[in-house]
Amino acid sequence: MRYFLELSYNGSTFAGWQEQPGAKTVQGEIQQAFNRCFGYPVQVTGAGRTDTGVHARGMTAHFDYPGEELVGEALFFELGKHLDHYIRLNRLYPVSDEAHARFSALSRTYRYYIICEKDPFMRATTWTIRHKLNLDAMRSSCDFLPGTRDFRSFSRSGSGTESYDCTINVAGIREEGGMLIFTINANRFLRNMVRAIVGTLVMVGQGKIRPHDFEDIIRGRDRRLAGPSAPAQGLFLWGIEYPDWI
Amino acid sequence: MRYFLELSYNGSTFAGWQEQPGAKTVQGEIQQAFNRCFGYPVQVTGAGRTDTGVHARGMTAHFDYPGEELVGEALFFELGKHLDHYIRLNRLYPVSDEAHARFSALSRTYRYYIICEKDPFMRATTWTIRHKLNLDAMRSSCDFLPGTRDFRSFSRSGSGTESYDCTINVAGIREEGGMLIFTINANRFLRNMVRAIVGTLVMVGQGKIRPHDFEDIIRGRDRRLAGPSAPAQGLFLWGIEYPDWI
Repeated sequence: MRYFLELSYNGSTFAGWQEQPGAKTVQGEIQQAFNRCFGYPVQVTGAGRTDTGVHARGMTAHFDYPGEELVGEALFFELGKHLDHYIRLNRLYPVSDEAHARFSALSRTYRYYIICEKDPFMRATTWTIRHKLNLDAMRSSCDFLPGTRDFRSFSRSGSGTESYDCTINVAGIREEGGMLIFTINANRFLRNMVRAIVGTLVMVGQGKIRPHDFEDIIRGRDRRLAGPSAPAQGLFLWGIEYPDWI
Repeated sequence: MRYFLELSYNGSTFAGWQEQPGAKTVQGEIQQAFNRCFGYPVQVTGAGRTDTGVHARGMTAHFDYPGEELVGEALFFELGKHLDHYIRLNRLYPVSDEAHARFSALSRTYRYYIICEKDPFMRATTWTIRHKLNLDAMRSSCDFLPGTRDFRSFSRSGSGTESYDCTINVAGIREEGGMLIFTINANRFLRNMVRAIVGTLVMVGQGKIRPHDFEDIIRGRDRRLAGPSAPAQGLFLWGIEYPDWI
């Protein structure tokens, strides 16, 4: 029986999503919780990986549950009880045997939070930039993002992917309560892509790159043209969208 | 020239307020920031101490500034720049030479945050209690708190104070956005007092202590009568009130 899990986690205390020997990771913690529940290992497959320090409001993962010990709500509560303090299980539901957290996903949404004033309580979940950013300029650059393009300018070099083509459906920035919130939805993301885009947009906001030069950066297909990568702690995997059939 | 500082800090990364050799403390970090600014040590005196993991939204401290290098806004910005990420300088202003952060204080306000659902992003700033608490019962107990009384039932044993008398001006609980917020204002607090009161109120909320037994606990003047101490991470020093003359 295949299930989907929807999870939130605070990335501050994890060495990213992916299981690694000797490191506390989200995938590793969930698998350990299964082990504590059932006494045998269950492999959990995520929709993607998040790097060290990156958060999730809506990560999806699947697993195949071989037993019959627990079903439905009981499984949800029992597993939830055994999870680390920094991981929250939001939903658990049965899916088609063909559904795959990674390969069935239609698109993914990320958000990036920038705060303009120092706040000791937001330090682990935002990027603090104390100089005023030009929001209009950043928005003009954002308008170049949607579409299907080769985005290798925003990809970690040597990430070994076969294709750098991504379809960005939505990209925008809004201001809310003293924060800038960048939202992006795409069919897929290259490694480090959101952080590279945000780092470059911030340079636009600081006047170091002209808004319309942003398009040349995309066209150049060279990581060195773009700005530095924004820090991990401002990034949230916001949600994964699936087709109805799952 | 004597100045008052108003500070916020996230207690998660500090071994409390008070300077200690070999530990990262709030007082120690502020004094180091002065040293980086001016090249000589400045002693900073807080309105009180907060324990490891306890936060502040409004701690006040004073210092005597011997130099003339920087005044007013310049001093505020320069010092702010040199402070740790988890400490924020909110205000800095000159006061009378007789003003003392601790001894001139008229009263102090603390807040304690309890959350009823697991939230990975609130873990370091709230106490998570997943069972429903009886808010009416907790409020009935709160009503016994205001007044001038011997509060040793809520004091860490062996805290070596001369008097256990405190005047509690206000004590109340309200519900807001899925959280219970306990607010208390008093002329002084004994060590561990707010956390012992909250721990006892939670036992009332859980039905383990009857609301009116709360008064007997106060009257008994014995720490063993009260409930366990609530964890540090839900506690905020909210503000210190001073007379106008300072």
